[in-house]
Amino acid sequence: MNRFGEQFRVTILGESHGDGVGIIIDGCPAGLPLDVPDFHGDLERRRGGRVKGTTPRKEDDIPQLLTGYFQGKSTGAPLTIFFANSDVKAADYAQRRFTPRPGHADFVAHEKFGGFHDYRGGGHFSGRLTAAVVAAGVVAKKLLAPSTVNAQLLSVGGSTNVDETVSTAMQDGDSVGGLVECVVDGLPVGLGEPFFDSIESVLSHGLFAIPAIKGVEFGLGFASAQKRGSEVNDAVLRRDGRTKTNHAGGVNGGITNGNPLVFRVAVKPTASIRQQQETVDLRSGEPATLAIQGRHDACIALRVPVVVEAVAAIVLVDFMCREKRIPRVLGRNV
Amino acid sequence: MNRFGEQFRVTILGESHGDGVGIIIDGCPAGLPLDVPDFHGDLERRRGGRVKGTTPRKEDDIPQLLTGYFQGKSTGAPLTIFFANSDVKAADYAQRRFTPRPGHADFVAHEKFGGFHDYRGGGHFSGRLTAAVVAAGVVAKKLLAPSTVNAQLLSVGGSTNVDETVSTAMQDGDSVGGLVECVVDGLPVGLGEPFFDSIESVLSHGLFAIPAIKGVEFGLGFASAQKRGSEVNDAVLRRDGRTKTNHAGGVNGGITNGNPLVFRVAVKPTASIRQQQETVDLRSGEPATLAIQGRHDACIALRVPVVVEAVAAIVLVDFMCREKRIPRVLGRNV
Amino acid sequence: MNRFGEQFRVTILGESHGDGVGIIIDGCPAGLPLDVPDFHGDLERRRGGRVKGTTPRKEDDIPQLLTGYFQGKSTGAPLTIFFANSDVKAADYAQRRFTPRPGHADFVAHEKFGGFHDYRGGGHFSGRLTAAVVAAGVVAKKLLAPSTVNAQLLSVGGSTNVDETVSTAMQDGDSVGGLVECVVDGLPVGLGEPFFDSIESVLSHGLFAIPAIKGVEFGLGFASAQKRGSEVNDAVLRRDGRTKTNHAGGVNGGITNGNPLVFRVAVKPTASIRQQQETVDLRSGEPATLAIQGRHDACIALRVPVVVEAVAAIVLVDFMCREKRIPRVLGRNV
Amino acid sequence: MNRFGEQFRVTILGESHGDGVGIIIDGCPAGLPLDVPDFHGDLERRRGGRVKGTTPRKEDDIPQLLTGYFQGKSTGAPLTIFFANSDVKAADYAQRRFTPRPGHADFVAHEKFGGFHDYRGGGHFSGRLTAAVVAAGVVAKKLLAPSTVNAQLLSVGGSTNVDETVSTAMQDGDSVGGLVECVVDGLPVGLGEPFFDSIESVLSHGLFAIPAIKGVEFGLGFASAQKRGSEVNDAVLRRDGRTKTNHAGGVNGGITNGNPLVFRVAVKPTASIRQQQETVDLRSGEPATLAIQGRHDACIALRVPVVVEAVAAIVLVDFMCREKRIPRVLGRNV
Repeated sequence: MNRFGEQFRVTILGESHGDGVGIIIDGCPAGLPLDVPDFHGDLERRRGGRVKGTTPRKEDDIPQLLTGYFQGKSTGAPLTIFFANSDVKAADYAQRRFTPRPGHADFVAHEKFGGFHDYRGGGHFSGRLTAAVVAAGVVAKKLLAPSTVNAQLLSVGGSTNVDETVSTAMQDGDSVGGLVECVVDGLPVGLGEPFFDSIESVLSHGLFAIPAIKGVEFGLGFASAQKRGSEVNDAVLRRDGRTKTNHAGGVNGGITNGNPLVFRVAVKPTASIRQQQETVDLRSGEPATLAIQGRHDACIALRVPVVVEAVAAIVLVDFMCREKRIPRVLGRNV
Repeated sequence: MNRFGEQFRVTILGESHGDGVGIIIDGCPAGLPLDVPDFHGDLERRRGGRVKGTTPRKEDDIPQLLTGYFQGKSTGAPLTIFFANSDVKAADYAQRRFTPRPGHADFVAHEKFGGFHDYRGGGHFSGRLTAAVVAAGVVAKKLLAPSTVNAQLLSVGGSTNVDETVSTAMQDGDSVGGLVECVVDGLPVGLGEPFFDSIESVLSHGLFAIPAIKGVEFGLGFASAQKRGSEVNDAVLRRDGRTKTNHAGGVNGGITNGNPLVFRVAVKPTASIRQQQETVDLRSGEPATLAIQGRHDACIALRVPVVVEAVAAIVLVDFMCREKRIPRVLGRNV
Repeated sequence: MNRFGEQFRVTILGESHGDGVGIIIDGCPAGLPLDVPDFHGDLERRRGGRVKGTTPRKEDDIPQLLTGYFQGKSTGAPLTIFFANSDVKAADYAQRRFTPRPGHADFVAHEKFGGFHDYRGGGHFSGRLTAAVVAAGVVAKKLLAPSTVNAQLLSVGGSTNVDETVSTAMQDGDSVGGLVECVVDGLPVGLGEPFFDSIESVLSHGLFAIPAIKGVEFGLGFASAQKRGSEVNDAVLRRDGRTKTNHAGGVNGGITNGNPLVFRVAVKPTASIRQQQETVDLRSGEPATLAIQGRHDACIALRVPVVVEAVAAIVLVDFMCREKRIPRVLGRNV
Repeated sequence: MNRFGEQFRVTILGESHGDGVGIIIDGCPAGLPLDVPDFHGDLERRRGGRVKGTTPRKEDDIPQLLTGYFQGKSTGAPLTIFFANSDVKAADYAQRRFTPRPGHADFVAHEKFGGFHDYRGGGHFSGRLTAAVVAAGVVAKKLLAPSTVNAQLLSVGGSTNVDETVSTAMQDGDSVGGLVECVVDGLPVGLGEPFFDSIESVLSHGLFAIPAIKGVEFGLGFASAQKRGSEVNDAVLRRDGRTKTNHAGGVNGGITNGNPLVFRVAVKPTASIRQQQETVDLRSGEPATLAIQGRHDACIALRVPVVVEAVAAIVLVDFMCREKRIPRVLGRNV
């Protein structure tokens, strides 16, 4: 299912080494000002081209607004944002096709799709698709304003010395995981839909779609499992819901309570490493070894914050729509 | 949104102090043998009537198979399981209506629904609804067999001395959180749907709908954020996907890889405690205090494992249906 | 799929001869005043107990508001309306189980559900389920006000002499079809969602779910296939969309244009007739004959108008919600 | 809502005078052989370039398989088919922007989207989008084989002398409607999902999305409203559901019964005519007149059959998937 959302709905498509990747937004209000440069900042953050530990691959990150766009604004029809693939090397994909990389989707993709998937560079499972997510996030952030979404990397490999830790891993032909925290300020009380569409439910749904995410927690999260109620409960201070502490991370009963929404995601280390690893040949069943060459992030967590923000913005705009807090049309043209 | 699932779909309804709670399953195969006693074991586990630290409230946990059921089997039409409420005390709900309990949904429910919600005993936000979830889980487990779903409480308040820790909290008029782990054995390779319906996405979606869950992690989970790729990657041993370790928790690229599916959830301490807490009067905006009397679990985590199993089974049956591994009809009646 | 609607969603359930039939509305605004007598009028119209040509069966048509209802108003949680079955005769259903009635769902139900369906009285395919639809329609009409939905029987068996035509058919042990027209006044411009959720698309989707409906047309409908554009096009008279004629039936491009919405449905004759008919024994494959005794409507079309209104109201409320014209909460309770 | 379908899901996008139009299929099985020439025949039928009475506009009807396609086969990931627009004339669209054409979506599009829609050539409401529908239909027909879908024009303007009738209308600067019938052979018993997803419900949902369709009927359709049960009921002849007559059009209780599926759609006359028509200036509210110049079909019904086939095939493949009659993967690649 490549679709996500109820009223602000995205459909994602594309492959790493095909014609391109893209996203369709169905349910974007008409009249939202949009322009290609609006996407530059977040796409640059995702690309992380100049950050140590991220891939030097120069992707073509210029979004094309193919449909739903007219005279500088969204039209209310499906908005398609497409990124053509340009920097594609066919490389040696065919030869490694039957020796799945540990930690990657290679094996499951092969099995699930009967060997018909586009196996080049991860295909539809490639992190390249997060460019499309980030682009939709840019649209969502505009709709969410003045509420703000900010994610940052808290630590890498358990250390707050990010650069140092990543450098060492790179030198070792290894990779390293990281922890990302996101804070959303300015949300109204009442977002979230019982029973199954709690804020945590839908946010985690979107977040776990990001490759490499292995954990999601809200407020105190896993720490709350170790605490007592008297420590965790947030005293209510004001009629608008403001609490003395924010251990709940801004959510009670699955619904925003007017305090900042706070959550963290655990990013596992990049699966591709230069060190030799054990795998199996899917044809013969014989053991095989594999050492992944070429350009790869030593720490994908460096690039994750902007993707987390995008997912959060997409989800929260959808909830705002569901609460009827975002109109179908922004203003009036004539 | 009280509906969940794509092909095996549940719709949940009801309130703590209304006529009852229930669940409708739309998409249950025809011909599944069902009987009221089938539900007894899991409902008893959820009720936890004899476990120290759980509420002594004697709920009416006898499921009624209202529709979609004929001559001992499911018919293929919507299957309705309903629990009438019997042990209802109107109590003092009206008087505490405007002083929201810290850590509860009282405030957000009041704001979201304009004061029209059934505020008695948590209403639609009550843990009572998990009885309906557990009942649907019983149906799902039957469909999932021979795959098995087993959840257990790993620790309470950070300690593995569960009874002792709960007892102390109770004596202090306090409550305590817990950590629950779930393992699913016997799943085929290939469950999970890119991009947005990864196994982790949909499972966490369902899990975070359970009241009091504040974190979900798969495999190594948050620990992987502190590790290197060489430590985390699971070497592939066999053509069927079996890996040497299972740090991924049985999921790569959002799709089951044939190894046991392993995840953990963090359960926060029960919000209701006897100790005095600070809140606000929603009418006057003046500070108020509140000490919750009556029967309450000191550790809701004790009752969570069977609910986690139910959610997992519901989600996995849906994925099995999506992979066309569960037929529309089980056998043939003449 | 027993669910229908995007934002105002209904889920229907139950069987003719089981415990009852019901409908769950997920997405009903909080604060809507409701009471059992509100349902009386439309249910009575559907029951048609006193109209010649309709079944004398005295069904139990008293709706129970099981969930989502508190102190005379909807709460915002799922609203369940249930009708217990009382007037049930097990009758001779078992013996006719394998000789499907011509024109009925007997054969397809048996095949689709492998013989596990509740075959008594049509089971889940029974017209009895329209009681639940009508009940949801009552709720929808309240939300749609001041817009009005009015359906009426235009003709029976091709004649406007309804009583006379039905009487003759009854005397002959036969049944007769009818034509129903529905007019919705007071709709705003702009309801309907391109491309696939045109007004005609979603309305016809709901209408064709009503048993016995075999045709749906809007405005001039089939007559427009025989005409020229100069005859069919409606001249636009005013800035609010008012047109000189209403051949379009109030819809252009799938979207309401501010003129009355007008459509007609063709109702086939009741399938159950006393005359002898040919069928087959599903076990032996041998020819069989069948003459249906007992109480049956000679003209189901007599009871259809109120069901058509209900479907129309349900669909239009959903479209109103999608256009954000119906709030999540009606007023405020303190 | 530009999405349609449950398991075989299409999302449509684009505008008449933007970059192009396209369709995404989410849920297409992996391993389906596809090639650009496969689309030629049906696209040519839709284009109707050589048929008298259809527009001489030379559209660019070469489909691009942008995503989900690899080495001549579908991959299981979303399949995107895109048609770039080439033959675009900006023309005089701006000047007629505020004088809505009678019978067109101009007025409702302007009102619904606040004037932000792409008004050139009908924009997102253009018949150009049916190229995308036809393309998805080509994919669906492959999956549906050996079942066949055949639609044909029965009459135009009430006459079976199609050419003659269209010619006369053209000479008069007028247009004319038509009647199209579709027959689907080879369907299994049991397609269709009670209560709301009857075959008729979902088919009509899709059919009414086609511009200019104003009526849909199954089997005897509207004629059945004038008949008696003894005339309409189809005697059952064989254990496989074969009936003596097929007045039901292959559907009972909303479910296919093994006989040919037969339905008809009414196509209204093309709204664009050269004759002078009355409208209003949306800015001033003053009356205005309008005579539409340029290339237009005199009888859009000529081009509708292949679109009807496409919708039918898309819907029926979805139902086949829901009955688990189409696998997720077709064969195995290695």
